[in-house]
Amino acid sequence: MDIPQDLKTVEWRDGRVVMIDQTRLPGELVFVEYETYGQVADAIRNLVIRGAPAIGVAGAFGLALAASRSTAGTVDSLMADLCTARDELLGTRPTAVNLKWGLERALAAAEKCTDADSMRRAVVDESLAMAEEDVKTNKEMGKNGSGLIGDGETVMTHCNAGALATVSYGTALGVIRATREAGKNIRVIATETRPVQQGSRLTAFELMHDGIDVRLIPDTAVGYSMAQGLVDKVVVGADRILGTGHVYNKIGTYQVAAMAARHGIPFYVAAPLSTFDLDSGPEDVVIEQRKAAEVTGIGDSMTAPDGVGVINPAFDVTPPELISGIITEKGVAAPPFKESIRALFG
Amino acid sequence: MDIPQDLKTVEWRDGRVVMIDQTRLPGELVFVEYETYGQVADAIRNLVIRGAPAIGVAGAFGLALAASRSTAGTVDSLMADLCTARDELLGTRPTAVNLKWGLERALAAAEKCTDADSMRRAVVDESLAMAEEDVKTNKEMGKNGSGLIGDGETVMTHCNAGALATVSYGTALGVIRATREAGKNIRVIATETRPVQQGSRLTAFELMHDGIDVRLIPDTAVGYSMAQGLVDKVVVGADRILGTGHVYNKIGTYQVAAMAARHGIPFYVAAPLSTFDLDSGPEDVVIEQRKAAEVTGIGDSMTAPDGVGVINPAFDVTPPELISGIITEKGVAAPPFKESIRALFG
Repeated sequence: MDIPQDLKTVEWRDGRVVMIDQTRLPGELVFVEYETYGQVADAIRNLVIRGAPAIGVAGAFGLALAASRSTAGTVDSLMADLCTARDELLGTRPTAVNLKWGLERALAAAEKCTDADSMRRAVVDESLAMAEEDVKTNKEMGKNGSGLIGDGETVMTHCNAGALATVSYGTALGVIRATREAGKNIRVIATETRPVQQGSRLTAFELMHDGIDVRLIPDTAVGYSMAQGLVDKVVVGADRILGTGHVYNKIGTYQVAAMAARHGIPFYVAAPLSTFDLDSGPEDVVIEQRKAAEVTGIGDSMTAPDGVGVINPAFDVTPPELISGIITEKGVAAPPFKESIRALFG
Repeated sequence: MDIPQDLKTVEWRDGRVVMIDQTRLPGELVFVEYETYGQVADAIRNLVIRGAPAIGVAGAFGLALAASRSTAGTVDSLMADLCTARDELLGTRPTAVNLKWGLERALAAAEKCTDADSMRRAVVDESLAMAEEDVKTNKEMGKNGSGLIGDGETVMTHCNAGALATVSYGTALGVIRATREAGKNIRVIATETRPVQQGSRLTAFELMHDGIDVRLIPDTAVGYSMAQGLVDKVVVGADRILGTGHVYNKIGTYQVAAMAARHGIPFYVAAPLSTFDLDSGPEDVVIEQRKAAEVTGIGDSMTAPDGVGVINPAFDVTPPELISGIITEKGVAAPPFKESIRALFG
């Protein structure tokens, strides 16, 4: 497939938000344009865009649309419109903390303003700044992580923590890209990542696009691949990281981490500081349950009997004792994480 | 879906072999009829029929077709025809030991005969006896296993070790059925079992048919379900069990067992004595690699980019230290397995 080199997952263009429709990948590369925050909320809800850092920026762009479309004449009425938009956008994905972070940061910029027009400009400018910083952050994270990967090693990754999960470059796959840019040979084993198949649809797609050697496995072959000695390191992304080092990420991450520990394979998490939630404990985190149809079929094919009960959590939690290090733009946090994570924010 | 109560996975009917085409489930219940051993070999190869005990009997029925269709007039020429058929049938699924067992048993019956016609009859009669014994064996196995499951417990199973993996009743699902017949409430969590989805297509189908409470999970949600306390016991089938207690079963079984051990959940294997291979060590067992198309898509939906590399092993091996007990028709073998397995055959 022919795709532009400067592939952008989400972008602000002429007062509109432009996104790659990730539900159409790998079959077609389609860009969609949105004019209202409600459309952006639907896009996040329906996984047109996904990936914690990407939806953080998408949420901010949603507020930017709300700001520019609002006819409010006063600071108070515009702020009221922004809060309505914030609430709808925040409700789309309760687990990923970057969304909350992106919305709050855009609102904070708005709060500084004394008239409605400068408030509109402030929200747009802040969301644009966040999009630029995302790429810069990923490249720093990649550099910090690339030192952990040896020449000729094979890295397993789960789900998609790539360019398509961020504005560009990626978190876990940013570490892979930076490792290659450092002149090392690197191979990737990508899990399919049922039920939504971000591994086969997105990770395989973007690594092949970059000419990085990638092999796909069913999620059932994680233990086999490790037992066969095919995996040197594991690197995944995160949707939320607590101050304790508990990592919330795509369903299946926990068992990949547990199998890695069983086989003595280092397991790393790559995520920007915006993914950290230092205020919550494990008991506070809501894990979304998604619709049964994701599990009872693939694409248009039904693969289960009508009416079967389904358990379909979007995320699981990986406990700190299974994690070898957390790669951020400020450096790599090592166990014990309570101390090393606090130091990142010091 | 309306299906006969006396659902038979494979049957000898008027000199033909009749099977349920499992590749059409759960969508349609279609019975296919075969007249030559070559058609039976293709059916095994293409997973029209699968499940170690079922293909053991199917292989014997394949030899029965070869015997009845052969025009050989002498014992030697008929035996030559049977050996040709045996070799083709045996090549279809190298890992499942029951196939070898079923073929050898039917051949052994032939070898006792002194004329071609009695040899033809002997192969047919022996394969019919094996089909009858399979159901009897499963019911004994079920009784032996049902004592391990408490009233109101939830059992996780992987792949399909059910009626559809045997002539009828099932091995792991035979234990579930026997537990319910013993008057206990029982619930099942079935893994989807990518890439071929025997869990969603077959296990969910046959348990719903029997009115047993079943919930389906993606293979990525095994760790989550156990961490949430949703699973009391795990029961799976096996394709081959070594004298050391190493269990070869559907890809993904190993990580289900490892996660169960991590959460202190008893992990049981249910298999007839015909599944045991006391002559081989782990180094002797060939694990089939299946075609990439099983992983890159399903039905007509492509879910991965064209040309991506794929690792698609059919089976993995679960080491004895992860197994709480092996349920057979002769009783439950407990660790240490070297001794307890030898005792089963004593």
